[in-house]
Amino acid sequence: MTDRVREILSWYGADNPGTLANLARLMNHGRLAGTGKFVILPVDQGFEHGPARSFGPNPPAYDPRYHFELAIEAGCNAYAAPLGFLEAGARDFAGEIPLILKANDHDLTMNEKDPNQALTGSVEDALRLGCAAIGFTIYPGSEHRFEMYEQVRALAQKAKRNGLAVVIWSYPRGSGISKDGETGIDICGYAAQIACQLGAHIVKVKLPTAFIEQDEARKVYESQKIPIATQAERVRHVTQQCSFGGRRITIFSGGSFVGDDKTLLDEIRAIQEGGGFGTIMGRNSFQRPKADAVRLLREIMDIYASPTPQPSPS
Amino acid sequence: MTDRVREILSWYGADNPGTLANLARLMNHGRLAGTGKFVILPVDQGFEHGPARSFGPNPPAYDPRYHFELAIEAGCNAYAAPLGFLEAGARDFAGEIPLILKANDHDLTMNEKDPNQALTGSVEDALRLGCAAIGFTIYPGSEHRFEMYEQVRALAQKAKRNGLAVVIWSYPRGSGISKDGETGIDICGYAAQIACQLGAHIVKVKLPTAFIEQDEARKVYESQKIPIATQAERVRHVTQQCSFGGRRITIFSGGSFVGDDKTLLDEIRAIQEGGGFGTIMGRNSFQRPKADAVRLLREIMDIYASPTPQPSPS
Amino acid sequence: MTDRVREILSWYGADNPGTLANLARLMNHGRLAGTGKFVILPVDQGFEHGPARSFGPNPPAYDPRYHFELAIEAGCNAYAAPLGFLEAGARDFAGEIPLILKANDHDLTMNEKDPNQALTGSVEDALRLGCAAIGFTIYPGSEHRFEMYEQVRALAQKAKRNGLAVVIWSYPRGSGISKDGETGIDICGYAAQIACQLGAHIVKVKLPTAFIEQDEARKVYESQKIPIATQAERVRHVTQQCSFGGRRITIFSGGSFVGDDKTLLDEIRAIQEGGGFGTIMGRNSFQRPKADAVRLLREIMDIYASPTPQPSPS
Amino acid sequence: MTDRVREILSWYGADNPGTLANLARLMNHGRLAGTGKFVILPVDQGFEHGPARSFGPNPPAYDPRYHFELAIEAGCNAYAAPLGFLEAGARDFAGEIPLILKANDHDLTMNEKDPNQALTGSVEDALRLGCAAIGFTIYPGSEHRFEMYEQVRALAQKAKRNGLAVVIWSYPRGSGISKDGETGIDICGYAAQIACQLGAHIVKVKLPTAFIEQDEARKVYESQKIPIATQAERVRHVTQQCSFGGRRITIFSGGSFVGDDKTLLDEIRAIQEGGGFGTIMGRNSFQRPKADAVRLLREIMDIYASPTPQPSPS
Amino acid sequence: MTDRVREILSWYGADNPGTLANLARLMNHGRLAGTGKFVILPVDQGFEHGPARSFGPNPPAYDPRYHFELAIEAGCNAYAAPLGFLEAGARDFAGEIPLILKANDHDLTMNEKDPNQALTGSVEDALRLGCAAIGFTIYPGSEHRFEMYEQVRALAQKAKRNGLAVVIWSYPRGSGISKDGETGIDICGYAAQIACQLGAHIVKVKLPTAFIEQDEARKVYESQKIPIATQAERVRHVTQQCSFGGRRITIFSGGSFVGDDKTLLDEIRAIQEGGGFGTIMGRNSFQRPKADAVRLLREIMDIYASPTPQPSPS
Repeated sequence: MTDRVREILSWYGADNPGTLANLARLMNHGRLAGTGKFVILPVDQGFEHGPARSFGPNPPAYDPRYHFELAIEAGCNAYAAPLGFLEAGARDFAGEIPLILKANDHDLTMNEKDPNQALTGSVEDALRLGCAAIGFTIYPGSEHRFEMYEQVRALAQKAKRNGLAVVIWSYPRGSGISKDGETGIDICGYAAQIACQLGAHIVKVKLPTAFIEQDEARKVYESQKIPIATQAERVRHVTQQCSFGGRRITIFSGGSFVGDDKTLLDEIRAIQEGGGFGTIMGRNSFQRPKADAVRLLREIMDIYASPTPQPSPS
Repeated sequence: MTDRVREILSWYGADNPGTLANLARLMNHGRLAGTGKFVILPVDQGFEHGPARSFGPNPPAYDPRYHFELAIEAGCNAYAAPLGFLEAGARDFAGEIPLILKANDHDLTMNEKDPNQALTGSVEDALRLGCAAIGFTIYPGSEHRFEMYEQVRALAQKAKRNGLAVVIWSYPRGSGISKDGETGIDICGYAAQIACQLGAHIVKVKLPTAFIEQDEARKVYESQKIPIATQAERVRHVTQQCSFGGRRITIFSGGSFVGDDKTLLDEIRAIQEGGGFGTIMGRNSFQRPKADAVRLLREIMDIYASPTPQPSPS
Repeated sequence: MTDRVREILSWYGADNPGTLANLARLMNHGRLAGTGKFVILPVDQGFEHGPARSFGPNPPAYDPRYHFELAIEAGCNAYAAPLGFLEAGARDFAGEIPLILKANDHDLTMNEKDPNQALTGSVEDALRLGCAAIGFTIYPGSEHRFEMYEQVRALAQKAKRNGLAVVIWSYPRGSGISKDGETGIDICGYAAQIACQLGAHIVKVKLPTAFIEQDEARKVYESQKIPIATQAERVRHVTQQCSFGGRRITIFSGGSFVGDDKTLLDEIRAIQEGGGFGTIMGRNSFQRPKADAVRLLREIMDIYASPTPQPSPS
Repeated sequence: MTDRVREILSWYGADNPGTLANLARLMNHGRLAGTGKFVILPVDQGFEHGPARSFGPNPPAYDPRYHFELAIEAGCNAYAAPLGFLEAGARDFAGEIPLILKANDHDLTMNEKDPNQALTGSVEDALRLGCAAIGFTIYPGSEHRFEMYEQVRALAQKAKRNGLAVVIWSYPRGSGISKDGETGIDICGYAAQIACQLGAHIVKVKLPTAFIEQDEARKVYESQKIPIATQAERVRHVTQQCSFGGRRITIFSGGSFVGDDKTLLDEIRAIQEGGGFGTIMGRNSFQRPKADAVRLLREIMDIYASPTPQPSPS
Repeated sequence: MTDRVREILSWYGADNPGTLANLARLMNHGRLAGTGKFVILPVDQGFEHGPARSFGPNPPAYDPRYHFELAIEAGCNAYAAPLGFLEAGARDFAGEIPLILKANDHDLTMNEKDPNQALTGSVEDALRLGCAAIGFTIYPGSEHRFEMYEQVRALAQKAKRNGLAVVIWSYPRGSGISKDGETGIDICGYAAQIACQLGAHIVKVKLPTAFIEQDEARKVYESQKIPIATQAERVRHVTQQCSFGGRRITIFSGGSFVGDDKTLLDEIRAIQEGGGFGTIMGRNSFQRPKADAVRLLREIMDIYASPTPQPSPS
């Protein structure tokens, strides 16, 4: 148990030892064990985008065992997926990698202005499958957001009582927010804050742009001269300020682009420089041959393991 | 217990022995016992389309006992029906054929753009009637789809805890999808994937056409050159790729046409060639004289029992 | 216990002895005891249409005790009413007549295109009031129909577990169905089928006309030459075919006309000739002086007790 | 225990001794003890209309203790109020007057065409506060009426199981009913009937006018020559006919006018003459000085205690 | 335990000793201990307005520990915040200051005409975090208000059973109320009354203006000559009349202006003069340097501790 892991655990004083042990499991697994940094493999795209779009570019990825193996070989901290994908490998790979049950999901069989999520997993499912955490997506900006917040609240309370950690994917989306606003710095920071206030242990957001969506927020960004010009500055703002002053684990998505590893690795360096806690990256991991994915994931881990000074909460 | 049945059971590592025993019951009953192939008789059309439309062409089929007898005589793996039909025969035919309680149903007393399903049965009903499995329909593409997913999730969890198997009929339908799209290859594969992700042990889909509904999917089908020209290729894509790389039992509907057995049997051969796991066929079974239906069902079973190489998950 | 009652009980093999005993209570009470025929007095019109409209023509009927007495004196099989009416007499007439708690109700304080029902009673109410059965109305054709089906399903399961019988009033109504269609033969048969599939022991429908609502159904009625020209033929189609081939007790409403007893008795004869199981008749019973009502009800019972050959399931 | 009280209790044969004891408490308290007549003080106007409108005309009435004292001094049968008002005095006045918890409420911070009620109290609240009964408002004629009926049903069942009495305020209102219709004789009678059918022990309605809302009802009022010309006749129709032939306690509101006591007392005499069971009167009680209110309430009680022949159920 | 605290506790006769002990904890903590006055620090703006807008002007406030420290150093009676903020400090500051869990929240990622609240905390959360009370916001005037009232009712009942106090933020808002009406004197008084009737121990409202929203209320304000010209008069009307004649603790918001301390302190003096129970003030506390905030909060407390005659309930 490294000092850094102990320090991070100390931020979660309201949690029971079971939940802390599971947070520790996530931090002490894989190539980044002990650093307090995270590279997580999430694979919910079969549900969210469809199987051919998701796995067609790399057909072995149709098989749910593939992703367990990829996460294990690459040395990820954890593997996150919906119920079906976890059920299909949880016994074969029991104990080999911490699992996160993605407990709600959206599909693209319909286009809604204000998207919602269907509850597709439960705390009981997470426990019987041996998961370390349970994960949820919320859509701030959607007229259905309060339903999602309440769903998360109910399941998060139950998860914590049962010693699980809680991960929230906070993705602004819906008629309350413009397309640019979805990744605007103010909205990204707000999304992180909402997830933290809902009681998340780990928050996942998209990499923010310098766009500002809300006029009331713009006034503050300008009057307070909050630095948001560079990606690293924006990561720092979101993780070291909006996420409870740095006292919640905040990780970023790995983008939707495929093939341009340089851009991706630059983003990872910005996350590391800005004090972010890591990356959760699906399509860029499993839509290429496994050896290539393992190589890329390890390159990313090397960046996170580099001696950049550890972020400390203010 | 054949090697093939053992192999299939090995894909369901998250399930308890009770559920595995019921999956084995389904695979070890009837003329296809031990082959890992399925021919199931489903009779929910009295509810879904009305009694005269469904049973008028063959009046003995009005009597719920008829369908138990047909399934038993033909040597089907199982008989699936709504609550009322199962209640009307479960004691008389107890132990003679595995039963699947169809736990939700739709009727045609109204035409909705976005159809939903009413919950009409429960896990308790399935248990007291001695069923091996519980079945649900979902409509990806309907604005009510998330209600159905959540309904399935809740009951499937309870079913698995009680040692039952879970069958999902995944029928794309609703304002999110065009008429052609309902059987388009991308949507069919997506529908199979959603059912698998929701935790189905057995997935039922319609036979797909070569139509592609979604632009984002088309790009992948074209760029990856996924072969979908023939029916067998499309069956292979859906069962050996979209359904967890072949590690979930995927079966196909037996069509709505009546009387043209040649077309039907050609389709069965395509399913067998494509590595599909079988057929669930209602109207083509019970809307003709029983002797004729038994003959046809046996012909179909003969095709599935033929020495086509067994599909193996990738 | 007559052979006929034993035969009818044999159709309900999924039920526990408690429910069978209550079905037997219904069949072994009153002037039709042992015949397997039913004349039931239902009085929910105070709720459904208002008290003055319902009881004004015969003021003693405002008193809830009146209906218990009428049902007992006439020798009905059972008396069915909403919670309040049963509570007002259940102790005074305990053990004198089988009771059916009408557990949902609609009122006419508003005109909706798509009517619904309010749950107004429970299985616990039925048990504490000593009822033999619990009754529900469903409206196939209404956009709220699935809510009603689910309500019935939940309470019917609980009722059966507690040894009660389940009666469903299946009244097609709502924007899915034309005015003529509400009593059309295809819709009436469909309504009976839905009630049976939902697990009803006793189904109540309206007397059907020769009108056919749905084009797909018309094709079958015509191609199969299903005889529906006479009232008796239509009753036979609904009871001996659509209601599980005659293996569910199907009874008919007694019409809304008052005073023209000849037409009414002709309809009763048609029901008897067509193999129907009886009549449930409110307004024609209680909107006339009691002595006259008793006389009429006994005339009806005499028709049902006449030696018309018993219908047997196909 | 007077014969009249015993007689009234005999109408509630379905209730347990606990509920009968509470009904008796209501009838045996205050100046009308033993007569079977009721004058109840209800004070929900702070919630329903706002505090200044309700209590401004008599500022001591802002204090919740005032109403306990008024009801006790005047010798009312009971005091009815929402949760907050009861909590604010239940300990100080424990045992001094029977209490009725008004368990749902509406406010006037918004004008809806179809009003609803919020559940604001529970059976547990009523029990911990030592109440004799629990009260609800329903709005027949509103598109939300079925929600209210179901809410009442659920809580009334629980109340009865716990030995409480059930009071229903039945106020027709909403888009199903015209403004005149809200107090029309047919609608008032219908409202009383619905409350009785829902299982109320005590029904509260408004004083009806001779207006008739529904055409189908008008036919009956005219053809049956139901006398509704005088207020006493209308009270008799509602209480002695529509409310289960007089076998349910039906009481009337005390009007909204203030200061014109003569009109009010004439109405009370009409209620007494028509066989009504009493009055529930808020604003005319607490919007004047306490001494004046006590005097008025006692005058009303004197009318109800006068030797008008007791109404007997038909 | 001062006489004043004992007096205030005496108003809550319906509560159990556990709840009284927690009310006493709130009144006996900080610089105002024993006076019956309150200055509470609420910090839900991270959720309600976003983190940058809320904490950007004073970056140390991003850290959840900051607010615990501010409330403790300033000597506030209590600190109120949503789940996440309390979880992030409850262990570190256990026993140092009474906590109030803000159990529902709204965000500004969307603009609704009729706002609602999401349930984001529970009684179990409040208990495990060692809170003295649980808090809720309601929006009278919104078409969703009844949902909020019912949510509050359910959780308040549970909170009281578990010995917690209940605080309601009553903020009129929505399509039922004009912009001016949100702080109009009639609406403010009505909002306080609703919170009291829902069973709140402590009510929080905005400082009212002399605007009157509702015509029916205006008549009473004018005819009764209710004095509402000065801020102190308006505070007196709301606290000493509308809030159960002064027998419920009513506190006021501390405004949204920043920097103009003179205006703010004048308002505090008006609250004190009008017999208000105190202030709950977020943005004016944490959006300035801590030392300045401590100074301001102490100045406010000095006003509340001044020998203005204690308000006594009428």
